[in-house]
Amino acid sequence: MASRRLVVVGGVAAGMSAASRARRVDPQLEIVVFERSGYVSYGSCGIPYFVGGLVERLEDLVVYTPQFFREKRRIDVHVSHEVTAIDPRSHRVQVRRLSDGETWEAGYDVLVLATGAYAVRPPVPGVERPGVFVMRLLEDGMAMRRRVEELKAPAADAGRPPRAVVVGAGPIGLEAAENLRRLGCEVAIVEVMPQVLPGYHPELARIVEQELRRNGVEVYTGEPVAGIEGQGEAGPATAVSTPSRTLPADLVLVATGVRPQVALARAAGIALGATGAVAVDDHLRTSVPDIFAAGDGVEAWHRVLERPVWIPLGTTSNKQGRIAGENAAGGDARFRGIVGTAALRVFDLEVARTGLTREEAEREPRWEAVEVHVRHGSRAHYYPGRGPIDAWLVGDRKSGRLLGAQMVGPAGSVAKRIDVLAVALSAGLPVEEVAELDLSYAPPFAPVWDVALIAAREWLKDAALGSVPHAG
Amino acid sequence: MASRRLVVVGGVAAGMSAASRARRVDPQLEIVVFERSGYVSYGSCGIPYFVGGLVERLEDLVVYTPQFFREKRRIDVHVSHEVTAIDPRSHRVQVRRLSDGETWEAGYDVLVLATGAYAVRPPVPGVERPGVFVMRLLEDGMAMRRRVEELKAPAADAGRPPRAVVVGAGPIGLEAAENLRRLGCEVAIVEVMPQVLPGYHPELARIVEQELRRNGVEVYTGEPVAGIEGQGEAGPATAVSTPSRTLPADLVLVATGVRPQVALARAAGIALGATGAVAVDDHLRTSVPDIFAAGDGVEAWHRVLERPVWIPLGTTSNKQGRIAGENAAGGDARFRGIVGTAALRVFDLEVARTGLTREEAEREPRWEAVEVHVRHGSRAHYYPGRGPIDAWLVGDRKSGRLLGAQMVGPAGSVAKRIDVLAVALSAGLPVEEVAELDLSYAPPFAPVWDVALIAAREWLKDAALGSVPHAG
Repeated sequence: MASRRLVVVGGVAAGMSAASRARRVDPQLEIVVFERSGYVSYGSCGIPYFVGGLVERLEDLVVYTPQFFREKRRIDVHVSHEVTAIDPRSHRVQVRRLSDGETWEAGYDVLVLATGAYAVRPPVPGVERPGVFVMRLLEDGMAMRRRVEELKAPAADAGRPPRAVVVGAGPIGLEAAENLRRLGCEVAIVEVMPQVLPGYHPELARIVEQELRRNGVEVYTGEPVAGIEGQGEAGPATAVSTPSRTLPADLVLVATGVRPQVALARAAGIALGATGAVAVDDHLRTSVPDIFAAGDGVEAWHRVLERPVWIPLGTTSNKQGRIAGENAAGGDARFRGIVGTAALRVFDLEVARTGLTREEAEREPRWEAVEVHVRHGSRAHYYPGRGPIDAWLVGDRKSGRLLGAQMVGPAGSVAKRIDVLAVALSAGLPVEEVAELDLSYAPPFAPVWDVALIAAREWLKDAALGSVPHAG
Repeated sequence: MASRRLVVVGGVAAGMSAASRARRVDPQLEIVVFERSGYVSYGSCGIPYFVGGLVERLEDLVVYTPQFFREKRRIDVHVSHEVTAIDPRSHRVQVRRLSDGETWEAGYDVLVLATGAYAVRPPVPGVERPGVFVMRLLEDGMAMRRRVEELKAPAADAGRPPRAVVVGAGPIGLEAAENLRRLGCEVAIVEVMPQVLPGYHPELARIVEQELRRNGVEVYTGEPVAGIEGQGEAGPATAVSTPSRTLPADLVLVATGVRPQVALARAAGIALGATGAVAVDDHLRTSVPDIFAAGDGVEAWHRVLERPVWIPLGTTSNKQGRIAGENAAGGDARFRGIVGTAALRVFDLEVARTGLTREEAEREPRWEAVEVHVRHGSRAHYYPGRGPIDAWLVGDRKSGRLLGAQMVGPAGSVAKRIDVLAVALSAGLPVEEVAELDLSYAPPFAPVWDVALIAAREWLKDAALGSVPHAG
C-alpha cells in the first residue's frame, strides 16, 4: 500500500506543530510542508526583541531548521514555496517555487491549512514608501533591524538619534516602541483610538501610557494617520502626518493589526466564519473533507462566549496545530477552545487579560455585566520592591459567574496571576469560589490576600471591610 | 437591650481578622481581644526578613496598632493579657495581665479562639541555653536581631563573622538561613531528615540544597541534633553537636516546626481533631456552643483529601479568621477549605507546592498515584534571563484527576504558576483539561507552552513528542 501524504500549507507555529504531531502519530505518513517565507518554526513573538537587540541572533528565534525537520523527523520542508491553489476534488495543490517562479502540482490525502495572518497596512498615502515596516515575518524584523543599524552607522549619523514613529498602540506596537527605545531611537506612537491598548480597560491604558511617557515615548491617541510623507512619490518616509501634527520619522512601523490570510481557503471553497477567519469544528476540520486548519488564520471556540472567535495568538496556534496534526494523521483529538488570555510587557510593567471586557460582556443579553476594580500590592506590604497591581474583574451579576479579568502591575507580577483567573474561567468558577482560592503566599512574591482574592471580595460587596488584609 | 460581647483569644492574623470582620457585620457588638504577646496584627511571615534587615523597622511588620483598633474600629485590644481558662457553662474567661499578674474574669456571649501555634524545641540537652532562639513571635525576631547586632558590634567582634546554626531545614529554617547570610553570618543548617524541605520532592530538595551551598550555607541532612553545648549548665550556646560533628555557634535558631496551641481549648472541653489541632465544622464552630476557632491552632478541610488536616499558614489563618468573625457576629459564612498551597523563596530560587505529594497520594487507597517530572524554561527559549523550572505533577491514574504539584525555578517564576494548578485542584479539573489551559504568554515571562501544560502533556504520555514546544 502506498503511503498517505499530508501536505501542510504554512510552516510557522501551527504548521510545524501539525507536521511534528502527525509524524509522531503516524510514522509511515509522508509529510510535506510548504512555507512561503524563508523560515519555518520560529518564534514570531520574539521579533520585537530581535529588533531591539535583546535577542542577538536571528537563529536564536528559530526553533528548528528545515534540515532538522528533514533529517530528524522525516518532514519534507520547503521554504520559499507558495501554495497558490488547492483543488479539493482532485486532492491536489498548486505550488510555486519563489526562487525561479516554477510551478507544479502535488497531491495530498489530507491537508492542514496554516497560512496564518498578515499585517494590515491602512490605506493612507505613502504607506508603501521605503522605510515603512510591518512586524510579522522574520524577514520584517531583519529589515527593520538593518534599517536602524544603517541609521546609527557613522556615515548616516545625523548627529541626533534616529526617529521612529509607530502607528498603532496594540501589543506589537508597544513592544516595538520599547525595543526601538532600547536601540536609542526617539519614538512616537500614534493611535487612532482614544487610548493605547484598545480592548483593555481605559484606566489600565492610562497607566500604560504613563509608563510609555516615563520611558521617553511620545504618545498621541485619538489621532488617525493622514499620510506618510517623503521625498516625491516613492521616496523614503520622512514623516507621519495626522490632522494635528507632523512627526518626523526616519522609520515608520505600521502595527495596526492583522487579518486572517484566507484567500487560498476562500478560492478552494473552504467556509469562513462570521469573523472572516477559517471556520473549523472542534476537531479542526474545515467545511471541506480532508482539510484541517489551525493557527492565526483560523477561528477558535471561546469557552466563555460559547461561540467561535478570531483571536490570533501563538499559544492558540501551537495548540491548534498539534490537534490538527493529530487528526490529520488519523487521530481523534478535540480542541476545547480558549478563554481569551493574553499578556505583554511594556517597559517595567506587565499587562494581562483573560475572558471578556465589560463592553464584551454587556453585548451579551444573557448576562448582566458587573465590573469591579481594586488596587493591591504585588508583595507583602513590608517587603521591598512592592508595587501596585490594578485588577479589574468582570462578571455576571445574576449568576455570580466570572467572565473576565484584566491586570497591570510591576514586571513579573501579573501574567501568571491572570492565569489563575483563566483557569477559574475555564472551570466556570463562581465568584464566591474565586474569593476563597488557596493561593500561594510568602512575603517576597505576594501579599497574604492576593489581588485576585481581594478583587473577588470587592465584587462580593464586602471588600472595603474590616479585615486585616496584610497580616500573615 | 444590653449589647452582646465577643471575646477573641489571640490577636495576630486569625484573631484580628475575626474581630475586624465581626465589627463590620455587627456595628453594635462589643468586641474584646486578649493577646498574650506585646503585639497584634503583624505579619509573622515577615519576621525572617526583619531579622535579616530587609525589613528595617519592626513597625513595618505591624499592620495596625491596638490604638488603631480601639479608635477606628471600636475593638478593645489588650496586649500582654493571657486568657488562662474558658468556662463554657458560665460563658466566662479568666484573664491575667502579664505586667502585674492580676487576674479577673470576663463574660462572653460568643468567643473566637485564635491561639495559634507555638514553636517546638526538641528535647535535647542545652536547648534552653541563652543564644538559642525560635522564630515565632515578633519578640523572637527582635531578640534574634539584637543578638546578631551584638555579635557584630565592635566590642564583641571576634575578628570573624558571627556563626549561626539553624536546626531544621523547613521553610522557616531556610528563610532564616538566607537572612542570616544577608547579615554576614556564617550559617550551617542541620536537618534530621535526609533532605532539606521535608514534604517536597527529594529532587526538588536537592536543587534547593545546591542553591543553599552556592550561597555559602553549610547543609547537613540526616543528622539529628544531639545537644547544644555551652559554658557550664546554663551558659550561652557555643556549639551544636550531632553524632557526626560539632558546629561552633554564636547563635542557634531552632526551627523544627510548630504545634497547635491547644491547652486552653482542651481544658475547656473543646474537641480536638485527629491531627491534634482544634476540630471545627465548615462554619468554624468548635464542639462547644458559642465558641468558634480559627488560625494556626485549628484544622482546615482539605478539598483534595476530603478530610480535616492541620497545615498552619498565614493565608488560611486570615481566611478562617474572617469567617469565624462573620459567624460569631451572627453571619452565615462557610469555609470551603484549602488545597495545601505553600511557597517560599530561597535565595534566587522560588519553591512552591499545592495538593498532595506522591507519598501522600499513595497513602489513599482510592487513588492509584502517578507522578511525572518535567523541566522547562521560565521564559521564551531566546529571551535573556531564562532559567529552568522543574515541575512535578501527581495524579490519579484511574480517573485522570490532578492531585498535586510542586515546582522549583528562578525567583518570581513558580509561586503563581503553582496557583494555576491550585485552582485546577479546587475545580477538580482532569489532566486533559490542564494540558489545554489557555495560559498567558509573551517572551519576557513565559514560553509558548507553559511548564504546567508540558507537565500535563507528559502525564498524557505523549510529551516527549514531536511537537514544537517553543515556536510562537
